Amino acid sequence: MSKKTEPARPEARLPKGFSDISASEIRATEKMLGTIRGVFESYGFEPLDTPAIEYSDALGKFLPDQDRPNEGVFSFQDDDDQWLSLRYDLTAPLARYVAENYQNLPKPFRRYQVGPVWRNEKSGPGRFRQFTQFDADTVGASSVAADAELCMLAADTLEKLEVGNRYVVKVNNRKLLDGLLESIGLHKDDNVRQRMAVLRAIDKLDRLGVDGVRALLGKERKDESGDVTRGADLPDRAIEQVMSVFVLGITPLAELTSQDLARADLAIEFESRSDRPWYAGMKNPITLAHLGKALPQSPRIEEGLAELETIASLCKGAGYDRVLIDPSVVRGLEYYTGPVFEAELTVPIADDKGPPIRLGSVVSGGRYDGLVARFTGEKVPATGMSIGVSRLLFGLQHLGKYKDSVTQGPVVVLVLDRDRVADYQKMAHDLRGAGIRAELYLGESGMKAQMKYADRRCSPCVVIQGGDERAKGEVTIKDLIEGAERAKEITGNVAWREERPGQFTVPASQMVDAVRQVLARHKS
Amino acid sequence: MSKKTEPARPEARLPKGFSDISASEIRATEKMLGTIRGVFESYGFEPLDTPAIEYSDALGKFLPDQDRPNEGVFSFQDDDDQWLSLRYDLTAPLARYVAENYQNLPKPFRRYQVGPVWRNEKSGPGRFRQFTQFDADTVGASSVAADAELCMLAADTLEKLEVGNRYVVKVNNRKLLDGLLESIGLHKDDNVRQRMAVLRAIDKLDRLGVDGVRALLGKERKDESGDVTRGADLPDRAIEQVMSVFVLGITPLAELTSQDLARADLAIEFESRSDRPWYAGMKNPITLAHLGKALPQSPRIEEGLAELETIASLCKGAGYDRVLIDPSVVRGLEYYTGPVFEAELTVPIADDKGPPIRLGSVVSGGRYDGLVARFTGEKVPATGMSIGVSRLLFGLQHLGKYKDSVTQGPVVVLVLDRDRVADYQKMAHDLRGAGIRAELYLGESGMKAQMKYADRRCSPCVVIQGGDERAKGEVTIKDLIEGAERAKEITGNVAWREERPGQFTVPASQMVDAVRQVLARHKS
Repeated sequence: MSKKTEPARPEARLPKGFSDISASEIRATEKMLGTIRGVFESYGFEPLDTPAIEYSDALGKFLPDQDRPNEGVFSFQDDDDQWLSLRYDLTAPLARYVAENYQNLPKPFRRYQVGPVWRNEKSGPGRFRQFTQFDADTVGASSVAADAELCMLAADTLEKLEVGNRYVVKVNNRKLLDGLLESIGLHKDDNVRQRMAVLRAIDKLDRLGVDGVRALLGKERKDESGDVTRGADLPDRAIEQVMSVFVLGITPLAELTSQDLARADLAIEFESRSDRPWYAGMKNPITLAHLGKALPQSPRIEEGLAELETIASLCKGAGYDRVLIDPSVVRGLEYYTGPVFEAELTVPIADDKGPPIRLGSVVSGGRYDGLVARFTGEKVPATGMSIGVSRLLFGLQHLGKYKDSVTQGPVVVLVLDRDRVADYQKMAHDLRGAGIRAELYLGESGMKAQMKYADRRCSPCVVIQGGDERAKGEVTIKDLIEGAERAKEITGNVAWREERPGQFTVPASQMVDAVRQVLARHKS
Repeated sequence: MSKKTEPARPEARLPKGFSDISASEIRATEKMLGTIRGVFESYGFEPLDTPAIEYSDALGKFLPDQDRPNEGVFSFQDDDDQWLSLRYDLTAPLARYVAENYQNLPKPFRRYQVGPVWRNEKSGPGRFRQFTQFDADTVGASSVAADAELCMLAADTLEKLEVGNRYVVKVNNRKLLDGLLESIGLHKDDNVRQRMAVLRAIDKLDRLGVDGVRALLGKERKDESGDVTRGADLPDRAIEQVMSVFVLGITPLAELTSQDLARADLAIEFESRSDRPWYAGMKNPITLAHLGKALPQSPRIEEGLAELETIASLCKGAGYDRVLIDPSVVRGLEYYTGPVFEAELTVPIADDKGPPIRLGSVVSGGRYDGLVARFTGEKVPATGMSIGVSRLLFGLQHLGKYKDSVTQGPVVVLVLDRDRVADYQKMAHDLRGAGIRAELYLGESGMKAQMKYADRRCSPCVVIQGGDERAKGEVTIKDLIEGAERAKEITGNVAWREERPGQFTVPASQMVDAVRQVLARHKS
């Protein structure tokens, strides 16, 4: 029974959708981010940091899956009653930064930024409310050469991360969908809701499947629970056109040759996802021709196709043969105005139970020529890409990369005689002075628990100086790695005690050298 | 006049107390953080990341300067009406983490964490609402050897950052102040407000000066604007005791020898801050004796003095002579229970106008044995320290360090013939393939503007291939660094055009090698 005056204890727990990150994941992430940073820098991008909090109106609302106005973003009021929000991506803050500093920036302006973003959404497996993005953007370049360059940057990044040929970069152009909607009269301001509904419907293919998307393009969709989502309410003919071009793709599966499939290394994907054939199109000009034939004639669509053709030829010219055209890529973010693209790892992610799951895109991006104009009224062309950091790491680890990130623990100096902590601390200090990772045992427990602690810490060895060693001016060093190996060979308690595997004694003055030799022995 | 349907344009600006961080500051910070990380790792600390958002009740409220309950922390309600907050430090989340995962942690548990924290406070010069902390904590060690180790860690970190002898680590113990307050009857639960008021008063010495602190220890303080802050309402005798021991220090300035001053390298500080003599006490056991004599006799004070003595002897034993005792260090955070310390750079920060300003502490920390028990009811001893990242960088830059962080820009491949973008892109690609930072010019401007752009980007050289060069299978490389130097020597436009300083032509196949030679020439 707690006393009346004692306050209730809070529960130690995190809100849903948030998580702690372990040492090994941090080390793996840092290593991966270092590689990405190197590639981005090699393209001439410069780092920029913006704060987590911005004025809500400066960020705007461009998130997918937002049917209610306050969904998606964490917001709160400042002391002066103005609304603040946590950034939901790194692109909206960049637009604010560019609008604020336009006169002083080199143009084009290339910047990269890495940092957490927050989404106030329903969390689920693999779906967090805080996650890290790594972005690169080029502002002030209207040429599609800038978009093509980002596709190459995505490819180069994945190559440097040793993904090999197990990825594709899939490119499309918002102008194709916009042109189609225009042709059926959905281009006016009044039709914003409908246009966004079409975009979101296509973007949900992965989650809802073909029938779900078809329903959302029409009147409404009823889910398993009976909940009804209002659809885009397109006429039937338009639904079929959107489905055939942007959802199913224009090339029926049967028409793809096995050579196409092999070349794209996507055979496994095709088997598990027969509803969504991918294109081996970039090398094959007929694909763009097909696409043109399947869409209505319009200047907007012509422009979109011409841009895709330029991107294709620039990538091909520079030797990037894993950049493909895929009209089903639309991206859910509202602010894209031109080319959009995403990169996906073409490996099935095997789960313990059930069929392989699909990882989804690890890089995504596109052109957003209107975002800076929100502030200034003047159009500033811009294009960018974003890496989903933890999803990419997850994918890489499924490819067997970035898994060996458990580093060797520190050497632990044991405390046998509490009155001599100063001496033990000095030993740890001397080891560190020689560049060796070392710590003093700081707990209250005895010898056995200290050895166990050293094991827990993955220590390569411990340093021991009891009364006997001290009297002789010696220290004992116990090689835990060798000890563990030898222990397997030795049977019986007596033999163990006699042999003391991996344990040896040296003069105290030679401690550092002796530890160094143990470490050298176990360097992989 | 804007049309009626056009929405109002948001203003591109940041809320007060938030700022963008430039490329050069990011690079300098990253370099500094790498050094700090190395030192922390060498002591056996392991990285941990916790999310920015936690349940408000899990974080608790332990901030200084909070007279109203909702001050200090950014908070908002979740969908289920529970209150969430942005973390205001990295210690409260650590306590939550340890309470949540106690069974599975090695004990003692050493972790470091770096990341932004948020304070919903009035911002001012050098006072931000988002800033980065770099923390190291040892949880599960009640021994003051753990506190002493953190003082050494602070010292080692500053030494590795090449601060030289221009720093001190100042240590005190909360138990001294607690014991004094106990002795005047302020130890009961009802006196929490008064105890906190005393703590905050002392901690405000830097801002309010001696008279301000004295007023806050008494009834109230009236500031220049006439606003009244309620004080701790101590009896007169207690005020004088607190002032003499914790604010002014027990050794009058006159009693310190010039040798003391020279040894502590604090002469400059003494000149500008005669109200607050510092101690050269660690080497001088009389200081602790003095301290004991100036304070009432009590078990709590005895304990505090004994702990300080142990810390002193451990630091001295390991050769750390810049760890000093200073009773004026109390730290404003409520949760400290034992030794507290801070590290300060002993350099006056010269401003353009006015006298040198004081930078304040760059590292601070202390023992907080009650923070995990908030959750579990079981006492888990813990001690930690926190580096104020941008303040430390600011201080280091005033010492002339971390200033050369402007890296050489990328090689820029100019675009002379728009139809040949693919060729130019390929050149940039080839340079990157050879490990050279290179970009294609992506803007729309002509030759002159492109050269200006390359200058803005600090490019070492540009690559040019116009019609003439192409016909001959050549490229022109213009060394911008040499060009700028030679330009100073050459007078007259004609001579300039004839000599074309730093410019030369090579066969296209030798572009990479030629660029590499230019880069090698300018490597510092």
